[in-house]
Amino acid sequence: MKGKFYGIGVGPGDPGLLTVKAVELIRQADVIVCPESKKDEGSIALKIAAPYLRAETEQLALVFPMTHDKEILAAAWRENAIRIHEETEKGKTLVFLTLGDPTVFSTYMYMVPYLVEQGVEVETVPGITSFTAVASRLNLPLTLGHETLAVVPLMKGCENARAALENFDNCVIMKPSHDSETLAALLTEMGLQDNFVLISKCGTEEETLCTDINQLAGGKVPYLSTMIVKKGGISLG
Amino acid sequence: MKGKFYGIGVGPGDPGLLTVKAVELIRQADVIVCPESKKDEGSIALKIAAPYLRAETEQLALVFPMTHDKEILAAAWRENAIRIHEETEKGKTLVFLTLGDPTVFSTYMYMVPYLVEQGVEVETVPGITSFTAVASRLNLPLTLGHETLAVVPLMKGCENARAALENFDNCVIMKPSHDSETLAALLTEMGLQDNFVLISKCGTEEETLCTDINQLAGGKVPYLSTMIVKKGGISLG
Repeated sequence: MKGKFYGIGVGPGDPGLLTVKAVELIRQADVIVCPESKKDEGSIALKIAAPYLRAETEQLALVFPMTHDKEILAAAWRENAIRIHEETEKGKTLVFLTLGDPTVFSTYMYMVPYLVEQGVEVETVPGITSFTAVASRLNLPLTLGHETLAVVPLMKGCENARAALENFDNCVIMKPSHDSETLAALLTEMGLQDNFVLISKCGTEEETLCTDINQLAGGKVPYLSTMIVKKGGISLG
Repeated sequence: MKGKFYGIGVGPGDPGLLTVKAVELIRQADVIVCPESKKDEGSIALKIAAPYLRAETEQLALVFPMTHDKEILAAAWRENAIRIHEETEKGKTLVFLTLGDPTVFSTYMYMVPYLVEQGVEVETVPGITSFTAVASRLNLPLTLGHETLAVVPLMKGCENARAALENFDNCVIMKPSHDSETLAALLTEMGLQDNFVLISKCGTEEETLCTDINQLAGGKVPYLSTMIVKKGGISLG
């Protein structure tokens, strides 16, 4: 009998935010695939899922190189897919953990075509995204009724944020630390200086909120931050 | 001791997609708030959570009128908030279930300010959104790397979809049945006729996929559908 490969979202950090299905799959898995890289998203995901891991579950360390070189990446993904295929051919069930949701900004998705190419059966299990967790934390609607929602990873110069803010009712700006000074200027230019909330290290003891455009302009935004901008206004309860 | 009110996302339909936290809160709740209205989102949410309900949990039926009249709505929400406050004052824990995630297109959020006004302690618990569940079902990335993501509830005439498609790498079109013929024409005009997938009744036995622009133009799109458009192309594994 062939095994199966599951890509599983573990949510943004609280082990309580894994789904029941994710927990069952992690508990039943024969093998947990652990990406080895310097900036290790996988190890954070593993830590979040730790309460549900069995001691006897095998760990399979695979190298996912931190590079933008497409050939090196493709070779690594193919090699990892071949390695995973060897395990599923033995009838084993493998799980691969991703932070948040596997379909939203996760490198896991780059590997899926290589797994399919090898004939591995793949199932993706959704997780709680960081931005819905942040909005819930603030008791704040991301989008209501006929409103539109944009999710934008901030780029230097903020042109992608401008397009979003011009055309959308609600915007989630991921990685606002990338160019928070330009972002503050953009919000002010668009008259949205009172329409944002920035939350840093959401759900941890170091969590902070910022709604002050001058503080944002000051540029001291932690790396693990998310901004929500609502054109209709923000009221924090 | 005062009680507490939880707004809880139960995800898109599979009881396995509730979070561990949601299940614990539903199991421990003294009271489940059940919205009574004709188009009853609440009762669908209740059905999804049914495996986790205790028989002895009280049910509190509240009327949420299906109207766009803001005064009638405000009066109903205030009345419901007062009723909920009476229960939390008795030290009871109440849960209110929403389909998907409470911060994404849920009427629950309209009530939060009225609860806060009454002094009720409110906590929102995120859930799996329909669009990440759909993308997971298809093993399809919603957004990768520096790509942007738009979520748009389709309006007649598709102007909001046009703004999204023009400015974003990836678009989720909710309720594509609202004007699927115009949407098909728009996708064709923009050269995106091969860049979409439409999934209907996702995760049920009646689930169907459509990637054929002519079928979309034919206008026979079920109500419970979601479309994903990816400018970079779609490959279904």
